[in-house]
Amino acid sequence: MAEVKLLGLWGSPFSRRVEMALKLKGIEYEYFEEDKKNKSPLLLKYNPVHKKVPVLVHKGKPIAESLVILEYIDDTWGDIGPPILPKTPYERAMARFWPKFIDEMCIPTLRRASWSEGDEKEKAKNEAATLLKILDVEVKGKKFFGGETLGLVDIAAGFIACWFGVMEEIVGTQILNKDEFPNLCDWIEVFNNDNFVKQNLPPRDRLVGKYEAHYQAVKQARAA
Amino acid sequence: MAEVKLLGLWGSPFSRRVEMALKLKGIEYEYFEEDKKNKSPLLLKYNPVHKKVPVLVHKGKPIAESLVILEYIDDTWGDIGPPILPKTPYERAMARFWPKFIDEMCIPTLRRASWSEGDEKEKAKNEAATLLKILDVEVKGKKFFGGETLGLVDIAAGFIACWFGVMEEIVGTQILNKDEFPNLCDWIEVFNNDNFVKQNLPPRDRLVGKYEAHYQAVKQARAA
Repeated sequence: MAEVKLLGLWGSPFSRRVEMALKLKGIEYEYFEEDKKNKSPLLLKYNPVHKKVPVLVHKGKPIAESLVILEYIDDTWGDIGPPILPKTPYERAMARFWPKFIDEMCIPTLRRASWSEGDEKEKAKNEAATLLKILDVEVKGKKFFGGETLGLVDIAAGFIACWFGVMEEIVGTQILNKDEFPNLCDWIEVFNNDNFVKQNLPPRDRLVGKYEAHYQAVKQARAA
Repeated sequence: MAEVKLLGLWGSPFSRRVEMALKLKGIEYEYFEEDKKNKSPLLLKYNPVHKKVPVLVHKGKPIAESLVILEYIDDTWGDIGPPILPKTPYERAMARFWPKFIDEMCIPTLRRASWSEGDEKEKAKNEAATLLKILDVEVKGKKFFGGETLGLVDIAAGFIACWFGVMEEIVGTQILNKDEFPNLCDWIEVFNNDNFVKQNLPPRDRLVGKYEAHYQAVKQARAA
């Protein structure tokens, strides 16, 4: 039995965060692909509270919630590979603040801006622009959110760089554009073209297929 | 100018978390009471993203979000006073998992269970019972969530021990009862009667007044 197990979903931005962190650290792990419609007994056993991926199991002990797992990886394998969190308390606080902002504010709003319709969509698009502008200002003048190297905020912001781009393509919006968000778009280019990152994002064509199916299902549910 | 400033609201469970952590560590700070309806230039300057309390300002640098601040306090003054987070990576992960669960799942649901009406209220009450049961099982056999001493999870769960009790009194519910949640009720008793905690909770009569006014406003808004 592997010492480190990961229960994930190939298309989940949250699972991918954990895979990216493990690979950044060079930690070997056994990967279990979950089935959203038929959750494994392992998932239900190891994450009884949320019943969601990702779950990291280390020496038989489960940890859920991607950001909690990322900190665990950094706490556990701090000396191995590049750091995921910076070292000074203030930088660490910023590295925690922004992923929280991304998860609690940006991701739900960007999803709503993509999948909703009519007034709700317009409202969400405006909100999305406000939130993305905040990130645009935050990353200005920096290669990565934390500075010169990939870190926690970048890994967490992967949703915006990769997943949201696919969503925009499918629903035909262009909220994230270079005119309004030049710094964030620069970061996206750096992130998506980073050799390490590239190898750890889901295959784009497969993600397009997944989100196309999702969009059709959303539209059908609305029509019903 | 004080080295440590806190922008807070006396009745906010999130501000109180930070005050509790600062006092636990014995850190001196200057406190600024905010006005929710008339936010200070200081608050807008120091938390432009959320425009919310609490904000800790240390040596001129602002940190927002109560859980981020609590970790900052522990990172910065780790050697002073009792620890807020435990030491081992797995315990730290658990100390991060539960506050997230409390903030993202419990608090919104308990608020809905209190202030809403009709079907929405019934649904929220059922959800609240499910969530509180999870916490009840988690704290079983322990004095505090982390073990023998007050820690991050307890400080975060203060909302359930103090604020929610007042809310239940005002709206006349009794979701949190000893029959269904014996362990959680034991913890609440320990928490609310802890000498240190007691001194750092808002005055109960003032909280009753605040929430009574809130409940009246909610009912008036619904009737309008």
